[in-house]
Amino acid sequence: MSQEPRLIEVRKNVLKANDVIARALRETFRAAGVFVVSLVSSPGSGKTAFLEKSLTRLRPEVRVAALVGDLATENDAVRLARSQAPVKQIITGTVCHLEAAMVQKALEEWNLNEIDMLFIENVGNLVCPSSYDLGENLRIVLMSVTEGEDKPLKYPTIFNTADAAIITKMDLAAAVEFDSPAAHANIQAVRPGMRIFQLSSKTGHGMSSYFDFLHSHLAHLRPIVRRSR
Amino acid sequence: MSQEPRLIEVRKNVLKANDVIARALRETFRAAGVFVVSLVSSPGSGKTAFLEKSLTRLRPEVRVAALVGDLATENDAVRLARSQAPVKQIITGTVCHLEAAMVQKALEEWNLNEIDMLFIENVGNLVCPSSYDLGENLRIVLMSVTEGEDKPLKYPTIFNTADAAIITKMDLAAAVEFDSPAAHANIQAVRPGMRIFQLSSKTGHGMSSYFDFLHSHLAHLRPIVRRSR
Repeated sequence: MSQEPRLIEVRKNVLKANDVIARALRETFRAAGVFVVSLVSSPGSGKTAFLEKSLTRLRPEVRVAALVGDLATENDAVRLARSQAPVKQIITGTVCHLEAAMVQKALEEWNLNEIDMLFIENVGNLVCPSSYDLGENLRIVLMSVTEGEDKPLKYPTIFNTADAAIITKMDLAAAVEFDSPAAHANIQAVRPGMRIFQLSSKTGHGMSSYFDFLHSHLAHLRPIVRRSR
Repeated sequence: MSQEPRLIEVRKNVLKANDVIARALRETFRAAGVFVVSLVSSPGSGKTAFLEKSLTRLRPEVRVAALVGDLATENDAVRLARSQAPVKQIITGTVCHLEAAMVQKALEEWNLNEIDMLFIENVGNLVCPSSYDLGENLRIVLMSVTEGEDKPLKYPTIFNTADAAIITKMDLAAAVEFDSPAAHANIQAVRPGMRIFQLSSKTGHGMSSYFDFLHSHLAHLRPIVRRSR
C-alpha cells in the first residue's frame, strides 16, 4: 500500500473542507509515526467485537488505541475499555458518519507519539462514511455472513473506497447458508483485486492472516514500530 | 393508530419540501384507499425476505404491491417478483434514503385504485431514512438478532419515529445468544409502548401475530378491503 491510499485518489478533484482537515491529520499521523486503520460497515456487522479482539491481540506488541463513533451511547467505549487500550467515544448526534474534524478534536488530549496504531471505528452505516476521508492509512470494510452476499453490489461506493474487506461472523456461515464464492465475486466486481479476509471474532478462526496483514503494513511503513518499553 | 402517525407529530414544525410532497402522497393514498407500510432497517436485517413472505402471504386476500429502494441493483425487485405482486425498484444512486418525490414518481404508472396495501422498503440505513416522511400509514423498523441488542440505543431516532418494531432472524437467536429481554427493554427505552414482534421469515415462526396486526389496521381504517374479485 502506498502512503496515498486509493480512497484519496478516487476523489482527488473533490477537495472539500473535510479533505483539507483529513490531509492535515494524515500528515500529523505520519509525523508521529501512527498507522491508522478505519473500520466501516453496516450496523451490527461486528465492528466492535472485531476491534476488541484486535486491540487485545495487538496490545502486547503494539501501542494501540481506538476512537469509536456512534450517534448515541458510550457503550462501545465501555466495551472496548476491557482491552485496556486507550479508547475514546465520539458521539455524532444525528450525523451518520465521522468527519476528520471530529477525529482531530477527539485526539486533542492524546499524545500521538505514544501510539503506534490507531483504530477508528466509524458509525455503522454503508453509505455516509464512504466520502469522508479521516486521514487513515487503511480503510477496512466489514460485512457479516448474515447480511447477504449482495451487499457489495448494493453499496458499491463503500466497498470501492475500502482497501480491504473482512467477512465476519463466519461461525454463523453454515446456519445462514452463506455463499462465500458469491460474496467474493461481488466484492471483486466492485473493487477488483481487493484483499478479503474471512473470520470469526467469536471463535478467533481466521484472524491470524488478518493480523499478519496488519503487521506487514506496520513493518513496511515504519521498520521500528514494536514497543520498546 | 390514528390517521396522523407519530412520525409526523414529532416533527410537525419542521416542514420541509419533502413533507409537503409526503402530505400530498398521504392524501392520495387515503383517497385511493391504499394502506401504506414502510420498512426501515440496517442493511442485511432481512427486510426483503420479510417483504417477500408478506407479499406471498397477503396476496390471496389483499391486493398488495411494493416499492423497494436501493442505491444500486434491481436485485430486490427481481427477488420480490417471485411473489407475483407488482413490484418496482427505486434506485437512489448515492442517496441513503428514499424521499417522497421518489415514491411519487415510482407510482406514476400504477393505478392506486387497484392496490389495497403498498409496502415501501427503504434503503438499508438506520440513520438517513428517519427524517423522510414517505406518506406511509405505518413505519416498521426491523432489527435482526445478529445485530446486537443495543441498536435501539445507538440509533434512537429511527426507532423513535417507527410505529412498530420487528426482531428478525429469530431462528438464529440461540446461535448468537440473543438477549430478548434486553432488546425489548432497549426498544421501550427509546420508544415506550411500541409494539414488538419477534419472528423468522425463514421458518415463518412468529409471523401470524404480525399478519393479525396488519389486518387489524386494514379492518380498522377501511372496513371493506378484502379482494372482491
